Amino acid sequence: MAEVRVGILSTASIVGKVLPGLKHGMTVVGVASRDHKKAQEFCAEHSCGEGMLYDEMLERSDVDVLYIPLPTGLRNEKILAAIAKGKHIYSEKPMGGTAKELEDLINACASKGLQWMDGTMWYHSTRTKQMEEKLRSKALGEVLRVTAAFTFKAPDEAWLQGGNGRTDKSREPMGCLGDQGWYPLSAILWAFGWILPEKVMCTHVTFNKVDTIVACAGTLWFPGNRSAVFDCGCTSPHRSQFEVVCENGLLRVDDLVGGQKRSGNFGAYETPFVGSTEYVQGDAMGKDEVISVEGCDHVNMLVDDFAACVRDIKAGGKPSDDWPKRSLLVHKVMCAVFESANKGGALVPLGSGGYA
Amino acid sequence: MAEVRVGILSTASIVGKVLPGLKHGMTVVGVASRDHKKAQEFCAEHSCGEGMLYDEMLERSDVDVLYIPLPTGLRNEKILAAIAKGKHIYSEKPMGGTAKELEDLINACASKGLQWMDGTMWYHSTRTKQMEEKLRSKALGEVLRVTAAFTFKAPDEAWLQGGNGRTDKSREPMGCLGDQGWYPLSAILWAFGWILPEKVMCTHVTFNKVDTIVACAGTLWFPGNRSAVFDCGCTSPHRSQFEVVCENGLLRVDDLVGGQKRSGNFGAYETPFVGSTEYVQGDAMGKDEVISVEGCDHVNMLVDDFAACVRDIKAGGKPSDDWPKRSLLVHKVMCAVFESANKGGALVPLGSGGYA
Repeated sequence: MAEVRVGILSTASIVGKVLPGLKHGMTVVGVASRDHKKAQEFCAEHSCGEGMLYDEMLERSDVDVLYIPLPTGLRNEKILAAIAKGKHIYSEKPMGGTAKELEDLINACASKGLQWMDGTMWYHSTRTKQMEEKLRSKALGEVLRVTAAFTFKAPDEAWLQGGNGRTDKSREPMGCLGDQGWYPLSAILWAFGWILPEKVMCTHVTFNKVDTIVACAGTLWFPGNRSAVFDCGCTSPHRSQFEVVCENGLLRVDDLVGGQKRSGNFGAYETPFVGSTEYVQGDAMGKDEVISVEGCDHVNMLVDDFAACVRDIKAGGKPSDDWPKRSLLVHKVMCAVFESANKGGALVPLGSGGYA
Repeated sequence: MAEVRVGILSTASIVGKVLPGLKHGMTVVGVASRDHKKAQEFCAEHSCGEGMLYDEMLERSDVDVLYIPLPTGLRNEKILAAIAKGKHIYSEKPMGGTAKELEDLINACASKGLQWMDGTMWYHSTRTKQMEEKLRSKALGEVLRVTAAFTFKAPDEAWLQGGNGRTDKSREPMGCLGDQGWYPLSAILWAFGWILPEKVMCTHVTFNKVDTIVACAGTLWFPGNRSAVFDCGCTSPHRSQFEVVCENGLLRVDDLVGGQKRSGNFGAYETPFVGSTEYVQGDAMGKDEVISVEGCDHVNMLVDDFAACVRDIKAGGKPSDDWPKRSLLVHKVMCAVFESANKGGALVPLGSGGYA
């Protein structure tokens, strides 16, 4: 099997979580930072190749893929440079910049035959793929309504009031909508088969003392008189769930992000992702069946999916357009919800303007 | 214990379901109908006293309470006449007429020292009362968000297209919003401690071929930057549920109406209501506990609560203002959602106009 070589563009804490997955499915060449010494120390500590500066990493001909977990505000400039150097892009979510800016990046990737994928782990689990097959085959009929949420309670007041990257708009402009909202919005678009909603509305928003979103809810209207609602934020208890209501049945998951079910094992987010071992399928009459699925490490699954794309391209194939489409659609919807939040809950149409 | 004597104003099919509860907690004097013979036959078949005409029933001095399951369009006129004759009112839900019309009926009751109660059974179960105590004591903090639904799939196309009372606006003007929407709306208002939302919006509506609502969803905005969403209708699988998210925990029920959990035992609606034996309480960290409660027959519990009110009044007390308040608030909100549905999803403010 052809080797796929990855470089890491940041020493952010998420790297520690993703690194075992990168090592599992790719060859880690090294880590880049603004600070050469910091990069070297990180590599020594984590046994992950050479430490180097950003520009050195971009010039390396032995790097196929760049994993880019930089903060959203800094990320797009680096991604653009990486695409120019012919690197496949594995970008952490949420996306940065405007919908148009992201579309340009994704088009640049496509035009150079490069793969784009974002770091949404749950897409890649065995469970998700099994449910996806049921939804796409219309085994339960058309999807009619989706309800999705990802919330957890801020550990303390300082964290809530800007002490975390999620609660400080200078680090994450969309705050908890960007960070946590990505999951329910991605689940909704996934369930609806990656079509764009016609319009969205932010129906609830809470800002903290530094004017950053810490809780958010909204409604999405889909073609065919169908709709979805979501909520996210760090002001209420841990919930990580979706319900997909179809014409003749439903699917439910209560551990969308973490895989630990409703066990209260919040620490499962800090350890390798093994879980997502079951989901609920209900029939038209309200009879539930708990369906068991083999557990898996989402990060390993993601890296495997990415490596398969790169190998395919190396063998003469084209990049998959599924993964970049997902990033773009979730980002478009999120930007529209953010616009609605900033306009006091106005209806924001999609399919035109910045969200074509 | 003082006898409480009830007369029944209709031979509708729901009487068969409620009758055992009426016999359990009150003395059934008889049944009234437009047709004397029909009433007599019904009484003979169900062993429930004398058959008589409506006006005869109103004149009976040995009737304390009238149980009134007439269709919403016919009901208010009969209720008004019954109040004039000094009868306590046990009205089936949903309510009929405008919010103002209902308020006048309820005020008329209060001014004559008569008890008003609607037929929402789930308020009266042991489970509901236990959860209510937790919510009112703020054991889990303030209620932040509620999601509630009651849906079931129409048994066939004829039923869906006007063949049932719920799907024919000449019989139930609000269609499935009136019939099924009553449950999630009542659950939301119950969870928020019977305060009026500031505004509502119908976010989804499906009409059938006879221009009657067969599916509906909406958002409710409550004081304190809090919100709720609901959906109802007969175009999707059976769901009968709510989730009350508080600051430090949550409560969940998946058998709001029927008490049969997610067993698929749809027929449980046709038999006496024994159930509601458990609910889920989650903590801030996402750990769930299933809390068991003694099962009970909701109808018996409702009739017992009503009879207790009447006995209290007979002993010189005043009517409870809790039950009429519940009817009025749910009806006000439902009328506002219906108005929004008819205005293409416009925001409808409450607390003013017809919804003061």
